[in-house]
Amino acid sequence: MAPEYPYYAVIFTSQRTDGDKGYGRMARKMEELASQQEGFLGIESARDSELGITVSYWDSLEAIQKWKDHAAHQVAQEKGRTEWYKNYKVRICKVERDYSFEL
Amino acid sequence: MAPEYPYYAVIFTSQRTDGDKGYGRMARKMEELASQQEGFLGIESARDSELGITVSYWDSLEAIQKWKDHAAHQVAQEKGRTEWYKNYKVRICKVERDYSFEL
Repeated sequence: MAPEYPYYAVIFTSQRTDGDKGYGRMARKMEELASQQEGFLGIESARDSELGITVSYWDSLEAIQKWKDHAAHQVAQEKGRTEWYKNYKVRICKVERDYSFEL
Repeated sequence: MAPEYPYYAVIFTSQRTDGDKGYGRMARKMEELASQQEGFLGIESARDSELGITVSYWDSLEAIQKWKDHAAHQVAQEKGRTEWYKNYKVRICKVERDYSFEL
């Protein structure tokens, strides 16, 4: 992924409730659906016993808003609040620059 | 943490090489040292078998630059490139807005 500047990142940090309760399946489904949206650039996730962090990348704030409002995603968000998450935080960010290292 | 806007996020995504090689100890030391820097607002990390994501939060781009240039952090960065990481990517971001949910 080598998008032009500026692009945008949505940092989603969360703590899960206990048990899967359909979370894994829905998470995969949402990732697939997100990747089909206009303006989607990529997604990265890591989760350990303490915290989950998912960062998705988008080419505009409009694309982020559209994905937030997507009907199927709205259903998932509601399930997130009632079943899957103890807490979460969403940060909408403008990526000002990036650099990388590879062995 | 309820900082005023704008604040800044550094998204650090990485894949580790095999074995600890002093990484865990240095990671804890760097987190402690970062938290003592002027302009530091917070840090969150998650790592699973695929990927690690660490996001640190700062009150200015100057604070981020100073931490990058910090002598002890420079030593850790060099060890990161020669021993600990297969690859990493750093993204410097301006947080435009955030919102959260708590059960």
